[in-house]
Amino acid sequence: MPETKVKKDEDFNEWYNEIVELADLCDKRYPIKGMNVWRPYGWELMSHVDSLIRIELRKTHHQEVCFPLCIPEDLFQKEADHIEGFGKEVYWITHAGHTPLEKRWLLRPTSETAMYPVFSLWIRSHADLPLKTFQIVNTFRYETKQTRAFIRVREIHFFEAHTCHVDFEDAERQVQEDKEIAKSLLQKLSLPFIFCKRPEWDKFAGAYYTLSIDVLMPSGRTLQLGSIHQYKDNFSKPYEITYENEDGGHNHCHQTTYGMSERILGAIIGVHGDNKGLVLPPEVAPLQVVIIPIIFKGKEAGIHEACTKIYNELIDQGLRVHLDDRDISPGSKYYDWELKGVPLRIELGPRDLQQGQMVIACRDTSEKLFVPLTDATQQVNQHLTDMAHRLYQKAQNLLDENMHMVDTIDEAKTLKGIIQLPWCGTDQCALDIEEILDGNTLGEPITQDQNIASHSCPVCNKEAVAWMRYAKTY
Amino acid sequence: MPETKVKKDEDFNEWYNEIVELADLCDKRYPIKGMNVWRPYGWELMSHVDSLIRIELRKTHHQEVCFPLCIPEDLFQKEADHIEGFGKEVYWITHAGHTPLEKRWLLRPTSETAMYPVFSLWIRSHADLPLKTFQIVNTFRYETKQTRAFIRVREIHFFEAHTCHVDFEDAERQVQEDKEIAKSLLQKLSLPFIFCKRPEWDKFAGAYYTLSIDVLMPSGRTLQLGSIHQYKDNFSKPYEITYENEDGGHNHCHQTTYGMSERILGAIIGVHGDNKGLVLPPEVAPLQVVIIPIIFKGKEAGIHEACTKIYNELIDQGLRVHLDDRDISPGSKYYDWELKGVPLRIELGPRDLQQGQMVIACRDTSEKLFVPLTDATQQVNQHLTDMAHRLYQKAQNLLDENMHMVDTIDEAKTLKGIIQLPWCGTDQCALDIEEILDGNTLGEPITQDQNIASHSCPVCNKEAVAWMRYAKTY
Repeated sequence: MPETKVKKDEDFNEWYNEIVELADLCDKRYPIKGMNVWRPYGWELMSHVDSLIRIELRKTHHQEVCFPLCIPEDLFQKEADHIEGFGKEVYWITHAGHTPLEKRWLLRPTSETAMYPVFSLWIRSHADLPLKTFQIVNTFRYETKQTRAFIRVREIHFFEAHTCHVDFEDAERQVQEDKEIAKSLLQKLSLPFIFCKRPEWDKFAGAYYTLSIDVLMPSGRTLQLGSIHQYKDNFSKPYEITYENEDGGHNHCHQTTYGMSERILGAIIGVHGDNKGLVLPPEVAPLQVVIIPIIFKGKEAGIHEACTKIYNELIDQGLRVHLDDRDISPGSKYYDWELKGVPLRIELGPRDLQQGQMVIACRDTSEKLFVPLTDATQQVNQHLTDMAHRLYQKAQNLLDENMHMVDTIDEAKTLKGIIQLPWCGTDQCALDIEEILDGNTLGEPITQDQNIASHSCPVCNKEAVAWMRYAKTY
Repeated sequence: MPETKVKKDEDFNEWYNEIVELADLCDKRYPIKGMNVWRPYGWELMSHVDSLIRIELRKTHHQEVCFPLCIPEDLFQKEADHIEGFGKEVYWITHAGHTPLEKRWLLRPTSETAMYPVFSLWIRSHADLPLKTFQIVNTFRYETKQTRAFIRVREIHFFEAHTCHVDFEDAERQVQEDKEIAKSLLQKLSLPFIFCKRPEWDKFAGAYYTLSIDVLMPSGRTLQLGSIHQYKDNFSKPYEITYENEDGGHNHCHQTTYGMSERILGAIIGVHGDNKGLVLPPEVAPLQVVIIPIIFKGKEAGIHEACTKIYNELIDQGLRVHLDDRDISPGSKYYDWELKGVPLRIELGPRDLQQGQMVIACRDTSEKLFVPLTDATQQVNQHLTDMAHRLYQKAQNLLDENMHMVDTIDEAKTLKGIIQLPWCGTDQCALDIEEILDGNTLGEPITQDQNIASHSCPVCNKEAVAWMRYAKTY
């Protein structure tokens, strides 16, 4: 079988770039760097991820909305930290036709400042709460670092859930719900991940606290797929989002947001792919099964009919199936569909047909199984489920092998992946470690370690108050 | 039953504004005029329309893509007529963060100039043709006229299909296919319409010819929902979209586009709505059926169970159903759901239950029908189908009554709606008629009248070469 020019375990980053292009996911030749063209296959994959997101968010009673892209400068400037954080990376619109705008607009980098003035109109009383909304849109950030398809782009496809609550506790319950949504969603994509409570100096601009959702890529770097923010009343005060409580008084809402971006695709490609191409989780694969008739020298012998029968049976079950009857060799077809990451390939030749069986080849293991023709649907469903489990387990093993809890910097220096070290609570000590390890602070684990006080900070030797995680990041 | 403050037949435009707001479709209070917030109910309605569009375009082998929003100024300027047409109505981005851009970008008003440089990379040989793509995105136009929800906005939700072909004839076949798609789509929305071949002086900037898709609103004005354009090689020449033909030579592609906007919602609201609110075509109604238990003084008597049974039965059939068990009067519920345009209401009270029947009330006729409980699904499906037919027929009658074919301006002046007059082929004569009738030229009918030469132009009296249509427009 042909393989990628660059091998995944030799040069992960180059392998990633090659795969993205070969598999027709996006076209990076658009003349604005970091604003890529979604090709049909990539966009369909993303759309299936979006569908899963919609299911999770609807199930938890979020309502889908769509807010304007452009935000007037004065709205944007109401929350001081937010301007500080985003001011340098937004795009500015200054003219409409030949007319200069009275005040500039910016393209949303995220939609707090577009939504919250409107939320303040929508929310009148406690009966309007909780307000749970989301939108799936493109956002815009002026990235100055090197761009990379799906991982670091300037036009970013993402979902953002925004909620308003009567008090901090109810907002905390929302954070818990968001954590469950993230688990459920990423489970379906066979992507194990960790939550980290981002450090104070690197939380979202305007948040009270931020939980990051990080995946470990095979390169040993982590990729932050998204985050969950508790805003407290940090935004509701400047944007005047208040409600009348049961006693007739007025309170400020407490708010949360939860967002994840097209980086989910980056993780799917990077974590699951191999030297033959993509390996797609069955839940989101644009095609779940491809059927290849094995016909030699035109000796058809009822093969096409038998393949069509299987095709119809699987389609009727709601599966996404393609019957590849192109007039090229089976080997060329295998190559194409392996590159595209189709989870299962069914092969059917004259001898199989005689014996009342077909071959199922699994994309991740290359294993070939002989299966009775009468049992096609059940076998396909079973193998799709099994493959999703295998992908998850393989990724979990990678994560487990690369999560290290150590006490000293000397040990940390010898390790790859996510390093967990005791931390005294002082920003500077963590920043020193970042520099020594040439990595970034991911944040604290979200479950507390009761015995942390028996450890000491590897920089200042003071008693530790928490574990802190570091990694090289994308 | 409560009704709108403004009556539809007294002041259509005000009635329209009132309905849009009362039915929670969008919020016009966003601080940029013409950039409105899609509220959940409006966005869901739009999403169902988008789904129908996707079905039609996939069925005809169009592939969905997503191109960047921002277009560099130099790409935009390659096709001279296109700049001329759109230059005055685009928004300009000049800065990324604090850095001025080397060359300005604009927000897409439509995506020809973003797509075609990339198409020129995708298309190599005749085997790559036809290329049939579409995207569903928001576009941006600086409207200086008065804005109106869904009808004249500055951020516009729309789909755009772009195709490339080996020659003019194949592009012509695409235009025919697009016409069939428009018919099929608008049939499902119970919206009869007319095609007009737009006059030379008012066709799409860069097109060889443009067909408009116009609906008649009850105000007597027409609303152009979209258009189909034959570009010939007008864009493929400046954007260098060529292919290698079978003889090894290189030809320019011929291209078409087809697009329709959120004005479809404007038409649904305007054509079908009444003084009680929206009347939604069953295919796209966010809720197709609402079930209302009729419970007096808490005497439940199994009503809720019976309603749940109907609910489950209809949900299992894939229908969009809501069981409204709020603790308010049935009358208030009727009011809410009539406003929202839910096609069918099921009422079930103790006497109905005793008699093994339920009531189906149709939103458009207010007719109430007694139906056996055992026959719920079939009856509901039948009444949804019947309602769609009735809505179509009513709209067709409106269109027929307001399409006038006359020979003189004196006759034309007395009429409302779409006026068809003989035309000599001279721009100025049509422009004179526009002024006299205080309307716009819609264009020629797309089917030719063999006897047109027996008529003469009502302005210059010369022999007519075609009929020409005029109307007041939105």
